[in-house]
Amino acid sequence: MRWRFIANMVGILIFFLGISMIFPLICGLYFRDSSVMPIMTSMAAAVGSGGLIYFSSRCKDSTQISHREGMAIVTISWISIGLYGALPFYLGEVFPSFTDAFFESVSGFTTTGASVIINIEIVPKGFLFWRSFIQWLGGMGIIVLSVAILPFLGVGGMQLYKAEVPSPVPDKLKPRVRETAKMLWKVYVLISLMEVVLLLFGGMSLFDSLCHTFTTMPTGGFSTKNTSIAHFDSVYFDTVIIFFMLLAGINFSLHFQLLKGKSLAFWQDSECRFFLGTVLFLTLIVSMNTYGNFYKTLGEAFRYGAFQVVSIITTTGYATADYEKWPAMSQIILLFCMFIGASAGSTGGGMKCIRIMLCFKYCYKELFSLIHPRAVTHVKISGKVVPEDVMRSILGFLALYMGLFVVSSVILAGMGVDLLTSFTAVASAIGNIGPGFGMVGPAENYAAIPASGKWLLAWCMLLGRLEIYTVIILIVPEFWRK
Amino acid sequence: MRWRFIANMVGILIFFLGISMIFPLICGLYFRDSSVMPIMTSMAAAVGSGGLIYFSSRCKDSTQISHREGMAIVTISWISIGLYGALPFYLGEVFPSFTDAFFESVSGFTTTGASVIINIEIVPKGFLFWRSFIQWLGGMGIIVLSVAILPFLGVGGMQLYKAEVPSPVPDKLKPRVRETAKMLWKVYVLISLMEVVLLLFGGMSLFDSLCHTFTTMPTGGFSTKNTSIAHFDSVYFDTVIIFFMLLAGINFSLHFQLLKGKSLAFWQDSECRFFLGTVLFLTLIVSMNTYGNFYKTLGEAFRYGAFQVVSIITTTGYATADYEKWPAMSQIILLFCMFIGASAGSTGGGMKCIRIMLCFKYCYKELFSLIHPRAVTHVKISGKVVPEDVMRSILGFLALYMGLFVVSSVILAGMGVDLLTSFTAVASAIGNIGPGFGMVGPAENYAAIPASGKWLLAWCMLLGRLEIYTVIILIVPEFWRK
Repeated sequence: MRWRFIANMVGILIFFLGISMIFPLICGLYFRDSSVMPIMTSMAAAVGSGGLIYFSSRCKDSTQISHREGMAIVTISWISIGLYGALPFYLGEVFPSFTDAFFESVSGFTTTGASVIINIEIVPKGFLFWRSFIQWLGGMGIIVLSVAILPFLGVGGMQLYKAEVPSPVPDKLKPRVRETAKMLWKVYVLISLMEVVLLLFGGMSLFDSLCHTFTTMPTGGFSTKNTSIAHFDSVYFDTVIIFFMLLAGINFSLHFQLLKGKSLAFWQDSECRFFLGTVLFLTLIVSMNTYGNFYKTLGEAFRYGAFQVVSIITTTGYATADYEKWPAMSQIILLFCMFIGASAGSTGGGMKCIRIMLCFKYCYKELFSLIHPRAVTHVKISGKVVPEDVMRSILGFLALYMGLFVVSSVILAGMGVDLLTSFTAVASAIGNIGPGFGMVGPAENYAAIPASGKWLLAWCMLLGRLEIYTVIILIVPEFWRK
Repeated sequence: MRWRFIANMVGILIFFLGISMIFPLICGLYFRDSSVMPIMTSMAAAVGSGGLIYFSSRCKDSTQISHREGMAIVTISWISIGLYGALPFYLGEVFPSFTDAFFESVSGFTTTGASVIINIEIVPKGFLFWRSFIQWLGGMGIIVLSVAILPFLGVGGMQLYKAEVPSPVPDKLKPRVRETAKMLWKVYVLISLMEVVLLLFGGMSLFDSLCHTFTTMPTGGFSTKNTSIAHFDSVYFDTVIIFFMLLAGINFSLHFQLLKGKSLAFWQDSECRFFLGTVLFLTLIVSMNTYGNFYKTLGEAFRYGAFQVVSIITTTGYATADYEKWPAMSQIILLFCMFIGASAGSTGGGMKCIRIMLCFKYCYKELFSLIHPRAVTHVKISGKVVPEDVMRSILGFLALYMGLFVVSSVILAGMGVDLLTSFTAVASAIGNIGPGFGMVGPAENYAAIPASGKWLLAWCMLLGRLEIYTVIILIVPEFWRK
């Protein structure tokens, strides 16, 4: 493990994080609020210390990155930016403790959207801008991670995407990351711009349009309003946001293909079909279930049903309705949506559609081989055989996901949190969603969770966001052996 | 598929089920209660129709059973005995509907122990005896199923036990089943006798001793008292029952080995170590968690904690405490115990310790292979490599288990049952436990579940009891193709 090299990579990242604070600073200056000084101080700290780490650890040998170094860089980077991202909140005394500031920051960078702010609307706008902006940056990180880095590290079946990455450079990690990142970021920025324009067109202020775009595209879910999207109470905004949440939940390689003129890209991708099909199916069930029981018209049931299903399954976490008041069936469906998650290669979290889909196919294959014990069968996707080792990674990932969910919710309950809240807060954190049920329902926030619980949940968010293996591997003794 | 042959097997089973009704009949006659006539009628119906089916479908060619026939026989048998077992309750008007009678009967034969009787103590003793006795018979069925039949059908990784079955006859299914069954039944009867003696010794009536033994050994959990084992409020009975629930949760092959003089049998078996270790670990956590929060002395906390952990993890379902009033952490632990379950080859249900254990090892192996991408690694148990296909069956089983849990709880919630009840009733049914949380908590029963929900739960019980694959395969179209 070349620590010097790792420090170098993390240093430059912190440096650029500091540079990016220019945007909330401009926002703070424009609104002349109390966020200016804390942001300037944080910026100086990040640029200074990041630059110092970078220059003091420069080294020549950096063309090849080993598996182990790759994982260490990913995890350490996310923790570091979580710490630095918390600085403005902490220095600006937005929260009573560093724990809260760190929780909010990690919740931002992991694009979770779980908040500890009780009254969002009184927070100075510079901080709110930063809070939304870190989600957007987090989303950029995720795109590179899932499309360009994880496939090469072979984490959780992501090697499946090795061949699919649209890249002009052959199989070398570093140049490939750079080129792929650039291409997908262009797509990300382009779609974000479209959303800002459409929100402005509907009459949302520039500040709110930007902040909500910054939290839709990374499927983040922070809002500048206490009641989230329900605040605007507009069919137009609901529709626009549903549309962009869905886009954000689809593999960004497909958007790239679509922009390149491959008009059937979505349809030809089996994961995308599965994802959109699931969304449609669950929306219909939820709408039918809430119609009559909760909403008086089918239109209303469909509007709120579609919004919540899309918001939860894409792991965004916006709310237009307090789904805890819905009938039990709709609640359970939303709860399971937390586990399903969006597509791989999107900014969404959860287990990911591709894994769920392959797991289904795998179960069917097992049934088939019980009926025909001598037949040799394979799991296929889009006509291609899924290699055994990929299938194993996927099943291992799902088992690890469930195992961590179990252990973490037991620990959270041990901190004095009730049963339903423990379950759903952990599910929401690992899946990077935001709201849960009980104390952390869509109309509540995470302020009442004990401090130790907040650290646990921040850890869960990191685990989920970095596809578990990347983080958990650092606590396996074998990893540190020479 | 030789339907004639299948009918023949099922016919003889129904015939013997009818014969076995002699025991509750004797009980009814002794207590001179109103159960005599209904039981006699049911007995005549079972013996008559079973005999008729058997004799009318006799065929010569019955030495070899195919995989598909094996699975059809298992599932159809369990459904048939469920139907015939319900007759005494239905004819005796113990329940207002056949749905309830069938639910209670399936809950008995699958050794679940979920009851729809509101006031157990006013039910005529003949019926109560039958209710407990069918659990004991169900337990006998499970032993044969899991130790002698499923390993040969290759269901859910049970092929792992192919070599371990103590049998004097080589690899032919039919004689092997017979011999193995005989040996293990002797063990089952012997341990049951020990329990009856110990309960009598503590001052329990013969009737209650028999009924509770009949429901401890198959990890069933029906009681003759409204408040279950809490009724007796005795440290002695609690201890005896904990001991026998643990024995019932251990692979019966190990009991056989122990009786043959292999004194370290339990210790040498890694699943048994895992099972007992888990029980001890969770008991300690629950005791520490309830001590001070709920119980005043550590002794009390340990007594009730141990009882509930053992009762739930072995999937028995007896209660000495209303665990819904315990702190959240203990509740969540019990909830997860419902999924873990007991050992394979025992009468317990759930996912089974061996599968959980191998799943852990598998995850670790995956982490290891990420650190050393070129190393070839295998999952081992007791020093032996677990074949890839067995590992695949196990992971497929776990995925199918979770998938069915998800789908079934959504459907149950759709029938108007609340969130927590839907979740835990389904988990309890698939795991063959008995009580859950909410409407079906340890101090409640299943009477208030809508009729459609009772059918769904009965189906879940069958699924769980017959290791899912055996039942679900019958609804795969491929199964019926020539």
